[in-house]
Amino acid sequence: MKRPNREEIITLVVTMDLFVDLPATQKGSHMSRNIEIAEEIVEQSITKPITDLESLCAKIAKKLLEKHQYATRAEVKAYADYFLERINPSGVKALEPYKLIAESRANDKGGLKKLIGVQVIGMTTCPCAMEITKKLGEYNKSLPSPTHNQRNISTLLIEVPEDCQDIDADDLIEIVESSLSSPTYSLLKRKDEGKIVLDAHKKPKFVEDVVRDMLQAVLKKYKHLPDNVIVIARSESEESIHKHNAFAERITTLGELRK
Amino acid sequence: MKRPNREEIITLVVTMDLFVDLPATQKGSHMSRNIEIAEEIVEQSITKPITDLESLCAKIAKKLLEKHQYATRAEVKAYADYFLERINPSGVKALEPYKLIAESRANDKGGLKKLIGVQVIGMTTCPCAMEITKKLGEYNKSLPSPTHNQRNISTLLIEVPEDCQDIDADDLIEIVESSLSSPTYSLLKRKDEGKIVLDAHKKPKFVEDVVRDMLQAVLKKYKHLPDNVIVIARSESEESIHKHNAFAERITTLGELRK
Amino acid sequence: MKRPNREEIITLVVTMDLFVDLPATQKGSHMSRNIEIAEEIVEQSITKPITDLESLCAKIAKKLLEKHQYATRAEVKAYADYFLERINPSGVKALEPYKLIAESRANDKGGLKKLIGVQVIGMTTCPCAMEITKKLGEYNKSLPSPTHNQRNISTLLIEVPEDCQDIDADDLIEIVESSLSSPTYSLLKRKDEGKIVLDAHKKPKFVEDVVRDMLQAVLKKYKHLPDNVIVIARSESEESIHKHNAFAERITTLGELRK
Amino acid sequence: MKRPNREEIITLVVTMDLFVDLPATQKGSHMSRNIEIAEEIVEQSITKPITDLESLCAKIAKKLLEKHQYATRAEVKAYADYFLERINPSGVKALEPYKLIAESRANDKGGLKKLIGVQVIGMTTCPCAMEITKKLGEYNKSLPSPTHNQRNISTLLIEVPEDCQDIDADDLIEIVESSLSSPTYSLLKRKDEGKIVLDAHKKPKFVEDVVRDMLQAVLKKYKHLPDNVIVIARSESEESIHKHNAFAERITTLGELRK
Repeated sequence: MKRPNREEIITLVVTMDLFVDLPATQKGSHMSRNIEIAEEIVEQSITKPITDLESLCAKIAKKLLEKHQYATRAEVKAYADYFLERINPSGVKALEPYKLIAESRANDKGGLKKLIGVQVIGMTTCPCAMEITKKLGEYNKSLPSPTHNQRNISTLLIEVPEDCQDIDADDLIEIVESSLSSPTYSLLKRKDEGKIVLDAHKKPKFVEDVVRDMLQAVLKKYKHLPDNVIVIARSESEESIHKHNAFAERITTLGELRK
Repeated sequence: MKRPNREEIITLVVTMDLFVDLPATQKGSHMSRNIEIAEEIVEQSITKPITDLESLCAKIAKKLLEKHQYATRAEVKAYADYFLERINPSGVKALEPYKLIAESRANDKGGLKKLIGVQVIGMTTCPCAMEITKKLGEYNKSLPSPTHNQRNISTLLIEVPEDCQDIDADDLIEIVESSLSSPTYSLLKRKDEGKIVLDAHKKPKFVEDVVRDMLQAVLKKYKHLPDNVIVIARSESEESIHKHNAFAERITTLGELRK
Repeated sequence: MKRPNREEIITLVVTMDLFVDLPATQKGSHMSRNIEIAEEIVEQSITKPITDLESLCAKIAKKLLEKHQYATRAEVKAYADYFLERINPSGVKALEPYKLIAESRANDKGGLKKLIGVQVIGMTTCPCAMEITKKLGEYNKSLPSPTHNQRNISTLLIEVPEDCQDIDADDLIEIVESSLSSPTYSLLKRKDEGKIVLDAHKKPKFVEDVVRDMLQAVLKKYKHLPDNVIVIARSESEESIHKHNAFAERITTLGELRK
Repeated sequence: MKRPNREEIITLVVTMDLFVDLPATQKGSHMSRNIEIAEEIVEQSITKPITDLESLCAKIAKKLLEKHQYATRAEVKAYADYFLERINPSGVKALEPYKLIAESRANDKGGLKKLIGVQVIGMTTCPCAMEITKKLGEYNKSLPSPTHNQRNISTLLIEVPEDCQDIDADDLIEIVESSLSSPTYSLLKRKDEGKIVLDAHKKPKFVEDVVRDMLQAVLKKYKHLPDNVIVIARSESEESIHKHNAFAERITTLGELRK
């Protein structure tokens, strides 16, 4: 993959789901065609790297409709491990792992939708328990008191309108990480750990807050995009104080968010 | 399942792995015999409930050797969801989920080993980050300062010597929960959350500490058991400050621990 | 759980997902209320066993709306391991494992939907490859020729209209198993294996066929139910000849199917 | 990664587990050192590509002992998605997915072990059911009769002695694929499907056979390697006729196999 504004070529290991609809009159779909299309487009991408994963999905979705003449709709989903260089609190650079998600839906009337998204692991600290421990422990009001915190997995997907060139997965990662209580890092020295813990405790968040803050940030970043653009935000905390997870989700449009 | 010292009968959904060894001269094992044995023993247990999962495994392991005459060793592993009534800090009772684990290995020389164990989800708080935040945030020395904490999954297995009747899964759960920074609860009101968070922060633990403390508690609880009894302790923290987990394990014997 | 027309009481280990919506003005949901409701209803069920899993979900969904006054919609999903006695080709009875699925959605206008479903593991044999091997291998036309076959996981969910008492999970399992190339069994002697293989080869099926046949059987079985009843059918084959799976799904209503 | 005898550089997404032992006197391990080592060695590999995954593990294992002075043993495991061009029966090339596995164990007495391995998905056809259907269906003796077949996942690991340069993951994949009833392919036209099905039915195999045949092929291919070389072979069939899997494993040495 080669992003237009970058030098290097990134190699991604991509997992894909391919779907077509089937009329009542057709016994089964010709599944080998799906693989042929995927192979062909991957083959092409070796000589001419693709610029983004959602365009790859769109290309395959359109080809699916061409090759399965009986189908009226096609859907392609792609997932890939992705790495980005991050700088930890002491200024050391290291690669952090993320997931890229892309989707495309095409229909035989020429309709085509593309979505790009990211899945990010970070930390959330609980506002509710912090409020209680402050009182119970008689903590100084200016200092954050202990609370339960946990690994959080948040997902943000946005529709890419036709000819829109400026939605970048790296920006989405930025939005998700700044909506969490804190990003997390693979490499942390003792002092870094202390700083991140305190920062995260100054920004306590429920999963509901993470979803809301991602959506607000999307609204601000993409103010030039039209009202019908779909946005999906999800946040799941692997609660340290419970054996079950907390989960929040909102599927909406930029228009809805602007109200 | 009916424990000797309890009234009620517990129904468990058990998943099993069954193994036998195969001599070079034998093309394949007769797998349907494994299922027959399992079905037969399950059938019997309906009229006469078994008292423990490790004895069920041992019974099956011995039958495996009988029915697979060519085999010299048989191994049976069983896993089951298990629930125990726990009382949360405000005194409310609720069922908490655990996993029961049982194993048995039998050989054609009459050798037989049984292990019983539990897997418990709880919370660990990091001692290292707490030390740093105390300094960075200028916290009062008598109060625990914020640190990262997370969901922890710990496992404890112990060999059950022949004729030993007094190793109870509920005791093992007790040992694991008290070796963590805090047990966790499904049902917690706001005040409970505060109390558990403060308790967990007064008992910060690395996974290495959890393993050590489980082994010490086993040693104390089962001091009458012989030196050759195997003990396996594992602890894994789903680190909230990292995207990777921390893991510690020790496989040892009571004799080793007594040194 | 106690079915109205059965003597015995079944114990199920149930996993649940609980959701409520959140107005913009509400910071977070009071999650402890969800657990309280679940505990309370489970508590009641000990003295008075519930008759079905979808009613349990509906009961919890209604309580969620009561206790979360700000919420306009609530959703509850439940999954449980389930076992049914099946008779293999040689007439031997054994327990086979299935999954029960139940869902309920309630809104603050009194709307309530309940769905009950099952997930079944069985076998599919490929019609396409069989056609080819028949020619390539010059097989007798009256005998099924070899083809690839594989483990298939199929799911069938149906909406339960209010006051409808006659949708039984056991019937749904029956429908799914007879829509596959063959049901599978835990316990099979050599002769049984031969019979099942031949039976499955006389009924080759794509995943698309399995979905179609489940829907047809639902239509026939539940002809007295109204047009707006939702039916969801899914089938996934873990293709033995490919490293990827084949998947088909249809979400429809009895009305649509009647057209 | 750059293999000595190949032009191209392969990019791998590698997942790693890192372990060190801990003396009784040491409270916890300094985990950030593990990540530093991994980052450092990955950094170096950008300017100077490594030649194999097991050497990467060995390099990290040795560094772990250097940086954790209290440790006497270190262990590193690595897993990576891997792709190889395969030619299907009609001569079409396509990439097939595999898994690379590498391990290294180092001790403070200078001991160092390296293992390289692969995990391969393919197909097994059951010899037992085929024998029965032949009789039941009165098939011509010269033609294979229908049987159940399924997705099989087999793993082969071999120790790489010091200075040994000629164990190649691609050769191991070759060995595993030829020990199965048939390799599988992502891209298959109808005619290919027929051919693979018939080929697989001419080579029916239990998981026990797959393990035996992998070990025989290893013995033949690596006859120049010493007796103490460890070999691990595993095979698991996701039985289409059962809801459970069949599994076989042998952990042995070349010396044992030569007996």
